[in-house]
Amino acid sequence: MDKKILSMIKEIVGEEYVTNNPEIVKGYIYDETALPVRPRAANNILLVKPANTYEISEVLKLANKEKIPVFPRGGGTGLVGAAIPTVDGIVLSLERLDKIEIDKDNLMAIAEAGVTLRKLLEEAEKAGLFFPAHPGDESAQIGGLVACNAGGSRAVKTGVMRNYIRGLEVVLPTGEVLSLGGKLIKDNAGYDLAQLFIGSEGTLGIITRAIIRLYPKSKFMATLVIPYNNREEAFKTVPKILQSGIIPLAIEYVERKLVEKTANSLGMKWPASEGEYFLMIIVSEQSENSLYEVLERLADICTSNGSLEPLIADTRREQDSILKIRSEIYTFLKPESIDILDVTVPPANVLDLIKRIEKIANEYGIEIPVYGHVADGNLHPHILRIDGWSMEKYKEIIGKIYSEAIRLGGTITGEHGIGAIRKEYLLKFKSAKEIELMKELKKLFDPNNILNPDKVIP
Amino acid sequence: MDKKILSMIKEIVGEEYVTNNPEIVKGYIYDETALPVRPRAANNILLVKPANTYEISEVLKLANKEKIPVFPRGGGTGLVGAAIPTVDGIVLSLERLDKIEIDKDNLMAIAEAGVTLRKLLEEAEKAGLFFPAHPGDESAQIGGLVACNAGGSRAVKTGVMRNYIRGLEVVLPTGEVLSLGGKLIKDNAGYDLAQLFIGSEGTLGIITRAIIRLYPKSKFMATLVIPYNNREEAFKTVPKILQSGIIPLAIEYVERKLVEKTANSLGMKWPASEGEYFLMIIVSEQSENSLYEVLERLADICTSNGSLEPLIADTRREQDSILKIRSEIYTFLKPESIDILDVTVPPANVLDLIKRIEKIANEYGIEIPVYGHVADGNLHPHILRIDGWSMEKYKEIIGKIYSEAIRLGGTITGEHGIGAIRKEYLLKFKSAKEIELMKELKKLFDPNNILNPDKVIP
Repeated sequence: MDKKILSMIKEIVGEEYVTNNPEIVKGYIYDETALPVRPRAANNILLVKPANTYEISEVLKLANKEKIPVFPRGGGTGLVGAAIPTVDGIVLSLERLDKIEIDKDNLMAIAEAGVTLRKLLEEAEKAGLFFPAHPGDESAQIGGLVACNAGGSRAVKTGVMRNYIRGLEVVLPTGEVLSLGGKLIKDNAGYDLAQLFIGSEGTLGIITRAIIRLYPKSKFMATLVIPYNNREEAFKTVPKILQSGIIPLAIEYVERKLVEKTANSLGMKWPASEGEYFLMIIVSEQSENSLYEVLERLADICTSNGSLEPLIADTRREQDSILKIRSEIYTFLKPESIDILDVTVPPANVLDLIKRIEKIANEYGIEIPVYGHVADGNLHPHILRIDGWSMEKYKEIIGKIYSEAIRLGGTITGEHGIGAIRKEYLLKFKSAKEIELMKELKKLFDPNNILNPDKVIP
Repeated sequence: MDKKILSMIKEIVGEEYVTNNPEIVKGYIYDETALPVRPRAANNILLVKPANTYEISEVLKLANKEKIPVFPRGGGTGLVGAAIPTVDGIVLSLERLDKIEIDKDNLMAIAEAGVTLRKLLEEAEKAGLFFPAHPGDESAQIGGLVACNAGGSRAVKTGVMRNYIRGLEVVLPTGEVLSLGGKLIKDNAGYDLAQLFIGSEGTLGIITRAIIRLYPKSKFMATLVIPYNNREEAFKTVPKILQSGIIPLAIEYVERKLVEKTANSLGMKWPASEGEYFLMIIVSEQSENSLYEVLERLADICTSNGSLEPLIADTRREQDSILKIRSEIYTFLKPESIDILDVTVPPANVLDLIKRIEKIANEYGIEIPVYGHVADGNLHPHILRIDGWSMEKYKEIIGKIYSEAIRLGGTITGEHGIGAIRKEYLLKFKSAKEIELMKELKKLFDPNNILNPDKVIP
């Protein structure tokens, strides 16, 4: 980078917050994308750590003028390479924007972009409130969670990130700062621009602050493990639960062989001795009475739809242990995974999707274990490595899985987003006009294409 | 209109669905905007009633080519003139797109634009499901409800229209048809364009079909009337309720003098003999036990925050009677109203807003009764007519109310939108860049500015 520009950036954020030392930079150029499909980061990266919105705006004005690519960076927990600087430029870490404030009377959090999910959960809890969503890794940061419209397992009751966002502060690639929405439950004043930034994966603007709706603390929670010998029955139970009026925090689907292997790897034991297929349901209620009433009704619904005896974990320890095994499936499979998908279909079509994925797995003689957020129709197939796999074969396989998801009325990504590695597949099911509009939107917000270039748009 | 173009339109939709007969047209050119501030409709309006998306696309292609303004029309229940054809052109009624289908397994409705809210509520109920939102007038149509991101009183638990929309079919002003989202609970594949159309008030595209999330039927509902002698205490109770973990369907605020006058006008009686200020709370629970538990807890919270004895209506009839009085306040005040506002502030600031509105009312020697959706921070001040009112004075008054709402962190419209009559006020609190982006977005979607021109954008 030009020395003059470098010194201007140092002037904006302070010399100690700018570095190109490879030993430091290397911790900021990759995310959690599976290694076999992870894009390579570029070699000449300048790491910049601004302190606030003003500094970000100044850096972006300069970068825009000089046409220097800027890659915003949060916790680096993404799975599709959206945070990887694929060309030379600036990685702009939001970590110093780490202030959070809880407004108890309005049940909202005002969090800067660099606040971690862990911190948000803790601060909400301290105020007697609750942030329901739990998109996995708690080191994810608010800016990234919003930019990627994160989901996770606890989306059944109150939704994904988009549903909690009431206001955003965003710095545009051209340096202007937008303040959108507010501590508002309703706001219909003009086009809702905030919605465009949610899920844009850092390509339209840098989110610096979010106003997030919180919920009352869930005082009474329990986790059920519902065993089935027959998979069809497990899936048929899900709409019955939802139609009954019970809306759990989460309804997950797992299979014995996968949870047992994962539990073993952790030195733990899967609690259910019977059944091959399991629903895992987290319920949260505001009183002990209503918790037990819901548990009883749930058990009734499940057993009358073919389940074996449900296991109820109502102590914190039992629950944590079950949830630990569930959440470690990903970690257990990761080293063997070429890629982790998040295909999503109408909830009633999940089993069909699983069957079609099995067929594809058989066809190629590979293993594609699945698990996922079944009430959201959101499945996580892991494409496992086999001897002699090739990038070509892998692409063929995921292409087929995507086609099946789309045939079933679904989408190629329910939560992980498009990032760097899913762009081409958008062309499979988005119309030419929709892609054109995405391109035009990008041009409108980022005329010099400096912000997270080469991401999202095919 | 040019005869050739007229005959081309007739060819597209069929001669019987095109008319410029003033007797018929007059039913399609106004909405519910209060008379004193209602814009005048243009004189040369062609009413067109297409049967389906294809015909709409063909009409728009032609209109775009010939630069003929097109005004999409739903139920005509808006309050800001968004549906009024202010220049000569085509009013495109969506009434023939009236098909609805309920997908019970996915808990969703697939409704064409012309389906009324009444029909949606009925069809959901028939399937044992429930559409929670209730933005007032049930003759509103789905297309309009989505285009205006309708709210209403029942938004506390599961939100406004935006929160229910999972998929949209939209015809662009240039005639292309976009199919966005689907029966999907999670979808992160590219920019979420559907979000832009929600709340765009028919200026960016014509919504022809929506996929709407439904909820389980609320089996046990009750309405509480909580009387207070002290207004401060009424407002302080609201966050206490929400923090306690009880999330009602609705929390409304009304005052004795207003509900009594309204009840009298209906030949009814307001049920509470004591108290000057009232919270009206609708709770819905899935079992009788949990309903009574919630009612008991609610009564405790209210009385320990200064309320008089709460009245509980748990029969359908008692509830309907209270809700009838509440919903008729609008109708009762309407003939005397110059305008009905929907200023919205952070929920904890509602009482401050009311006090500031009172101060303005005193200053001008007028009456501005208020009521509203207090848990949403959403207030409905009615600017009542007095002798010698003038458009200038009215504009001064609402300008002051808007300024106070904005000072309190609020917005000029929580539900009604901008339409034709609020445009100039957007300039009060939106940045120049935000307005510029709105204009550019409009240009991107509607390059010839044919679709509902002169609305929303200042």
